[in-house]
Amino acid sequence: MFLHLSTWAEIGQFLERSRTIVIPIGSNEQHGPTGLLGTDWMCPEIIAGEAQKLADILIAPTFNIGMAQHHLGFPGTISLRPSTFMAAIGDWVRSLAGHGFEKIFFLNGHGGNIASIEAAFSELYAEASFARRRAGFALKLCNWWDLEGVDALAREQFPTGHGIHATPTEIAVTQWAYPDFIKSAEYSPRIANWGPIREALDFRARHPDGRMGSDPAQASIEKGRQLVALAAQGLVQEVQAFGDEAIPG
Amino acid sequence: MFLHLSTWAEIGQFLERSRTIVIPIGSNEQHGPTGLLGTDWMCPEIIAGEAQKLADILIAPTFNIGMAQHHLGFPGTISLRPSTFMAAIGDWVRSLAGHGFEKIFFLNGHGGNIASIEAAFSELYAEASFARRRAGFALKLCNWWDLEGVDALAREQFPTGHGIHATPTEIAVTQWAYPDFIKSAEYSPRIANWGPIREALDFRARHPDGRMGSDPAQASIEKGRQLVALAAQGLVQEVQAFGDEAIPG
Amino acid sequence: MFLHLSTWAEIGQFLERSRTIVIPIGSNEQHGPTGLLGTDWMCPEIIAGEAQKLADILIAPTFNIGMAQHHLGFPGTISLRPSTFMAAIGDWVRSLAGHGFEKIFFLNGHGGNIASIEAAFSELYAEASFARRRAGFALKLCNWWDLEGVDALAREQFPTGHGIHATPTEIAVTQWAYPDFIKSAEYSPRIANWGPIREALDFRARHPDGRMGSDPAQASIEKGRQLVALAAQGLVQEVQAFGDEAIPG
Amino acid sequence: MFLHLSTWAEIGQFLERSRTIVIPIGSNEQHGPTGLLGTDWMCPEIIAGEAQKLADILIAPTFNIGMAQHHLGFPGTISLRPSTFMAAIGDWVRSLAGHGFEKIFFLNGHGGNIASIEAAFSELYAEASFARRRAGFALKLCNWWDLEGVDALAREQFPTGHGIHATPTEIAVTQWAYPDFIKSAEYSPRIANWGPIREALDFRARHPDGRMGSDPAQASIEKGRQLVALAAQGLVQEVQAFGDEAIPG
Amino acid sequence: MFLHLSTWAEIGQFLERSRTIVIPIGSNEQHGPTGLLGTDWMCPEIIAGEAQKLADILIAPTFNIGMAQHHLGFPGTISLRPSTFMAAIGDWVRSLAGHGFEKIFFLNGHGGNIASIEAAFSELYAEASFARRRAGFALKLCNWWDLEGVDALAREQFPTGHGIHATPTEIAVTQWAYPDFIKSAEYSPRIANWGPIREALDFRARHPDGRMGSDPAQASIEKGRQLVALAAQGLVQEVQAFGDEAIPG
Amino acid sequence: MFLHLSTWAEIGQFLERSRTIVIPIGSNEQHGPTGLLGTDWMCPEIIAGEAQKLADILIAPTFNIGMAQHHLGFPGTISLRPSTFMAAIGDWVRSLAGHGFEKIFFLNGHGGNIASIEAAFSELYAEASFARRRAGFALKLCNWWDLEGVDALAREQFPTGHGIHATPTEIAVTQWAYPDFIKSAEYSPRIANWGPIREALDFRARHPDGRMGSDPAQASIEKGRQLVALAAQGLVQEVQAFGDEAIPG
Repeated sequence: MFLHLSTWAEIGQFLERSRTIVIPIGSNEQHGPTGLLGTDWMCPEIIAGEAQKLADILIAPTFNIGMAQHHLGFPGTISLRPSTFMAAIGDWVRSLAGHGFEKIFFLNGHGGNIASIEAAFSELYAEASFARRRAGFALKLCNWWDLEGVDALAREQFPTGHGIHATPTEIAVTQWAYPDFIKSAEYSPRIANWGPIREALDFRARHPDGRMGSDPAQASIEKGRQLVALAAQGLVQEVQAFGDEAIPG
Repeated sequence: MFLHLSTWAEIGQFLERSRTIVIPIGSNEQHGPTGLLGTDWMCPEIIAGEAQKLADILIAPTFNIGMAQHHLGFPGTISLRPSTFMAAIGDWVRSLAGHGFEKIFFLNGHGGNIASIEAAFSELYAEASFARRRAGFALKLCNWWDLEGVDALAREQFPTGHGIHATPTEIAVTQWAYPDFIKSAEYSPRIANWGPIREALDFRARHPDGRMGSDPAQASIEKGRQLVALAAQGLVQEVQAFGDEAIPG
Repeated sequence: MFLHLSTWAEIGQFLERSRTIVIPIGSNEQHGPTGLLGTDWMCPEIIAGEAQKLADILIAPTFNIGMAQHHLGFPGTISLRPSTFMAAIGDWVRSLAGHGFEKIFFLNGHGGNIASIEAAFSELYAEASFARRRAGFALKLCNWWDLEGVDALAREQFPTGHGIHATPTEIAVTQWAYPDFIKSAEYSPRIANWGPIREALDFRARHPDGRMGSDPAQASIEKGRQLVALAAQGLVQEVQAFGDEAIPG
Repeated sequence: MFLHLSTWAEIGQFLERSRTIVIPIGSNEQHGPTGLLGTDWMCPEIIAGEAQKLADILIAPTFNIGMAQHHLGFPGTISLRPSTFMAAIGDWVRSLAGHGFEKIFFLNGHGGNIASIEAAFSELYAEASFARRRAGFALKLCNWWDLEGVDALAREQFPTGHGIHATPTEIAVTQWAYPDFIKSAEYSPRIANWGPIREALDFRARHPDGRMGSDPAQASIEKGRQLVALAAQGLVQEVQAFGDEAIPG
Repeated sequence: MFLHLSTWAEIGQFLERSRTIVIPIGSNEQHGPTGLLGTDWMCPEIIAGEAQKLADILIAPTFNIGMAQHHLGFPGTISLRPSTFMAAIGDWVRSLAGHGFEKIFFLNGHGGNIASIEAAFSELYAEASFARRRAGFALKLCNWWDLEGVDALAREQFPTGHGIHATPTEIAVTQWAYPDFIKSAEYSPRIANWGPIREALDFRARHPDGRMGSDPAQASIEKGRQLVALAAQGLVQEVQAFGDEAIPG
Repeated sequence: MFLHLSTWAEIGQFLERSRTIVIPIGSNEQHGPTGLLGTDWMCPEIIAGEAQKLADILIAPTFNIGMAQHHLGFPGTISLRPSTFMAAIGDWVRSLAGHGFEKIFFLNGHGGNIASIEAAFSELYAEASFARRRAGFALKLCNWWDLEGVDALAREQFPTGHGIHATPTEIAVTQWAYPDFIKSAEYSPRIANWGPIREALDFRARHPDGRMGSDPAQASIEKGRQLVALAAQGLVQEVQAFGDEAIPG
C-alpha cells in the first residue's frame, strides 16, 4: 500500500491495524559511466514497491535527495548538506509521529546517507531526552543490501568487482525495473580503484569515472530480478519484526 | 529526458546544448475524501513527464514534500516547515547551479508552497546581493494551473465547484495517470466551504473532510487527459521561453 | 493608541477590552530618484497613526526593515534575509501572543515582504500543527493598498504610470506626511520599465534609477492626503472585522 | 540627515564625503508604572535626531526591538531572542557595509542589549577572522548615557534613586520629546529594589511594578532637555572621532 | 569533587545534598610570546581544582574552547563563533538542569567570552520567558579575577603592566600549575599597547606579539601560588552563596 | 607536544615541520556503576598524551562533550545535540585549517559520536563541494579501540563480557591513569544485556545500571597499562601515515 496513492481516510484506517511505515530513502548522484543518477533512491523504491505486494505494509513517498556532497563534481548529482538532510528527516518524522505512527522504518539505498540519518535520529531523540520524556516513536535504519540473504546472493552473483559505488547489484536492480534505460560503456580499468571520501573535487580526482571498486558490467536484468525478489521478502520480515517489537515501559 | 534515468555523462552532454532544468515540486497532503495524498506532487510530475516526450527538456526528480502544515490534522500528510523547505530548495539549487544550470524552473503543484518557494528564491538571491555579485542563475516558479490555456479549460470543464483544494482538475489529472487508484465517496455538502488558512487543528475544524470550495465528483479520466495534454504543451513553451531569456549585463 | 507611547499597565487595561494589535511593517529601500528610502515603512506607519485617531485600536512599533535583497544595489537600502525576517516576525508574535493578543494584524507597505511574511506565518503555525495543538493566535497580512477603496482611488488619481515600485501613491503618502522632504528629479523615461525580480545587481541592470513601471512625478500632497484618509478608514474596518472574527472550536 | 528621509542618490553623495553611519538601537519593553514602552528605543532616536541638526552625520532608521526577554512578564514588551537579534544586526551591517559604510556606530538605549550586540559584532568579525581576511568595516557600540558629560549631569540631577531600569534620566528624555504622553502614578516603595536578572517570571516576582532601583518621579521635561542637549553634543564628538579613526594596515 | 571522576550514582547522591555545579570555562588562544595557548581555560580549571579540595563542591569538565575570533591570526588559537558557543552552552545547561541542577556557576577565564556567555544565558532564559514559565535554573557568570580579594592582590603584585591580555596574573597561575612549561622571551616594548578589538587581522596588526597592555615578565610561580590560593577560597564563598540564594516564588 | 602547553610561536614553528594535528574527542556520560563519567574523553586524552612522548606529534585540547543524548537519563551525563556538536567541530576545524593544518585527526573515545562526527565532516566538505573548490584539509576519524593491535589485545584480555558500553577496556584505561578513582560495585547481572539505542528514558528502561553487554569487573590497572601502551604506538603510526598521505591534484 502506497501512502501517496491512498486517501487520508484510508491512512486513518491503516493506523487502526498498524503503527508502522516504511520510507524509501536514497540519493540522486552519479553512478559511474552507466549507472542511472537515480539509482540510490530508485532501488529502495523498487524493493518497497514489490514488498507491499506481498504484505499489508505501508510505503511512504520516496525521500529522493540525500547526502551526496562528494559526488557534486559530476553533473546531475543533487545533494543536501547533512544539516538540511537532518532537518528534513526531522519534519518527516514529526509529521508521521503526529498521526500516530510509532515505528518509522527507513529503507536506505545510499551508504553516504548512513551517518547523517543516524545523526538525524539522535537529533530527534534528543528533543525527548533533554526534556526527560518518552519520544513516542522508534526509528530504524536498514540498508537494502543488509536485508536477509541479499549479501550472500550478491557475493554469489559477483565474486569479484562488487565494490562500494556503482556496484553491479544496484545497477542490476535498476536494469530489472527500467529495462529501457540500460546504458553501456567501456570501463577502464575494469574494476575501479578505492580511496577515502572527502570533498567533491578530491573524489573526482581519485575516481575519474565515478566508480569505487566496482565492475558494473556484470549486472544483468535477471540478477536484478533475483535481488529484488529476495530483498522484498527480507523487507517484509524486517518491517513485521520491527512493528512487533515491544517498547519497554 | 529524466535526470534520474540518465548517467552523469549524459547530463554533461545535455549541458552543452541547454542550461535549463525543470523541477516538479509539490506536497504530500490530504486531498479530501477521494483525492490521493500524493496529488500535489504527482500532478507536476505527470505533466513534466508528458512534456519531456514533446521536446528536449530535462526533468529533475520530483521534490515531493512541501509546505503543508495546515493539513497535518489529516492522517498521511507530511510537511516541511518553511525554514526546512527553504534550506532544501537552497541545496537543490546550489547543486544544480554548480553543474552549470543557469535557468532553474520549478513546476509547482501546491498553492501552499508558493510563499515559501518565493522566500527560498529570495534567500538564495540574497547571498549574491549581500556580496554585491551576480547570482549566476535565474529561478522561476510556475504553477501547473497557470500554464497557457489550462485555466480556461478548467473553467469550461468545471463552471462551478472548482474550489482551491482537492479540486476536480487535480483529481482528474491523477485519475488519468493512476486509473487503478480512483476512489469514491459521498460528499456533504456537494461543494465544500472556504475559510482562512491557519494551523492544522483550525483547518480541520473549518473543513471536516479536507476540501476547500471544491466538488471533486466532477473529475473524470477524460478531463484529466485533456488537462495534461494542454499543460504539457504549455510547459514546453514556458520552459523554452525561460531558457531563451537574455540576462542583462 | 500607540503601544510605545503607553505604559505596561495601560496595555494590560487595553487587553481587557481587545485582543487585537496592528503592526505596521515595511522596508527601508531605494524608491527611485525622488522617493524616500523609508517610504515602505513610513506609509503603513502614517496610515496606522491616522487610524488610531478614529477608533480604539492599538498600534505596535513599526517593523521597519524588511525583505529588500533585490534593492541592495542602491545606497541606503537595508534588508533582512528571508530567514532573519521570519525569525524576527516569530519573536514579535511570540512576545505579543504571550501577553494575550489573539489577533495580530500586519499592515504591510512592501510587496517584496509578502512571501516572507506568509512563510513566517506558516512557520509559526507549524509549531502548533506539528504538536497537533491550537496556536492560540490568528495572524493577518494586509497591504495598505488593498484596504477598502484605496485601489479605486489610486486608479482614478493615476490612470497611467502607477507601476509597482516607487509608485506615485506611496510617494504621495510620504509627501503629505513629510512635506519638508519632497524631492524632485528628471525622470527618463517618464514611465519606467518592468522586469523579473532577481538578485540586486540584476535588478539595477534592469532598472537603472530604481523605479519599476512608475511615474512618481504625478504625486502630490493633496493626493497623499486623500489616500491616507481613505486608507485609515479602511484599516479601522479591517481591524475591527478581524477582531470580531470567531475562531471555530 | 536621516537615511529614511533621503533618496538613494543622496546617500550615494553622502558616501563620497563620509563612510560613517549611526544606528539608534534600543528595546520596546516595560518601564515601570509611568515609563513609556518605547523609552529605550526612543531615547537614542531623540538624541540622534538632535545630533544630526548639529553636524553632517547620517542617522539610520531605529532598530526598535531588542533583547528584553526578562521583561516579557509585563504587557507590551516585545523581545527578540539573542540569536534573532544577532542575525538581524548582521543583516543590517552587511547591507550597509556593502554600500561602502566602513564605520557603523550603534547608539544604544538598553543595557540588556549590550551583551547581545557585542556578541553580534563578534559573529560578524568572525566571518572575516575564520577566513583570515579583513572585515572591511569597524563596529562601535556606545550607550547614550556613556556619552561625554551625561553621567555627571545625571548624578547631579538625581543624586539618589537613579537605579538601572525606568531611570529618571530616560523618563526625562521621553518627557521632553513626548510631553503629551507624560504619565503619573504612585510609587511604592519610592525607590525600587534590585536583584539579578533572569527569566521573565523571576523578574516580575522580584520587581512587581517593573522598576529596578529607580525613582522616576524625579524626572522633568527640563531635566530631559538638558540631558538631550548634552548627549547630542557628545554624540557628534564620538561619531566624528570614530569616523576619523585610522585602521592599521 | 570532579564530575568526570565520579560515577553517575555518586552524582545522584550529590544531588541529594546540593543542586549547584561549577563549570570552568575559558578559551584556547594565543597569550603573547610566553603565555600558554591553554591559559584561559587552564586558569579556572586550576582554581576550581583547588577549591574542590576545600569544600564539597562539584566541578564539571572544563569548557575549553571559547569565543576568541580576534586571536585567530595567531597559530594555535581555536575559536567558536558566538552562535556556536551559545548553542553549546545551551546544551550543557539543558543537560545539567535535566538532572536537577538548579544553580549553574560558570567560572570564566576569558574576558572575550563574557558577552557571548551572557547572551547564551538570555537565550536560555528566553525559552522560559516566551512560554511565560519558570526556567527552573539560575545561571551565574563569574570571572576568576573578580573573586574576592584577587583584584587587590593583583594590583599589589603588579602595580604596572598588568594589562588585559597575556597578563602577569594569568601567566603566574599557569606557571604555578605547570612549572615544566614556563617559557621565556624578550618583550618589546616591555609593556604592550592597547586598542579596540575587532577581526583577527586587525588585532594582529595592532598587537604584533599578541599582548594587550601587559608585561608578563613579572609573573612568577610564587605569585601564581598566592593567586590560586586566594581565588580558590573566593570561589568556595561565591559558590556557597549562590547555592544558598533563595529564588522568589 | 600539547597545543595548550605551547605558545603561539611554538605552534608556528611546528607548522613548518608538520601540518598534522590530533584532537582527542569523546563524551562525558554515565559508564555504569563503576565507570567514571569522563571515561570516553579521558581515554583518548590519555592515549594521545602517551603517544606524544613517543614522537613529534601535536595534541590539541580535548573535545570533551560529545553526542550522548541516550545517556541523559543518568545523572552527570552532559550531551550536545548532533547539530550543536557538528557546529562546534566545524569551528574547531576552520580555526585549525586557517592556521595551515591540512590533516586533522580525531581520536575518538565514544561510539555514539561516530555518526555525528562523520556528518560534521560531510558538512565541512560540502562547503567546498557546493562551491566546486578544494577543501584544503583532510579529516580523519579513528576510534582508539581500532588502533593497530588494540582489538586483538582486548579479545585476549576479555574473552567474554566486553560489551559495548562501560566496557572493561575503557574502565581499565582510566584505572591505569586515575588509580585514585577506582570504584567498585556489585553487578547484577554480571554481564549486562543489549538493545537498540533510542531516547534517554528508553535507554534507562532497558539498561537500569547503564552498562551494555559488559562486565567491567574484569578491568585492572595492568590491563589498562597494556592497552594504553599499545594504543599509543598505534596512534603514532596512524598519525604519521595520515600526515604522509598524498592528496591527488
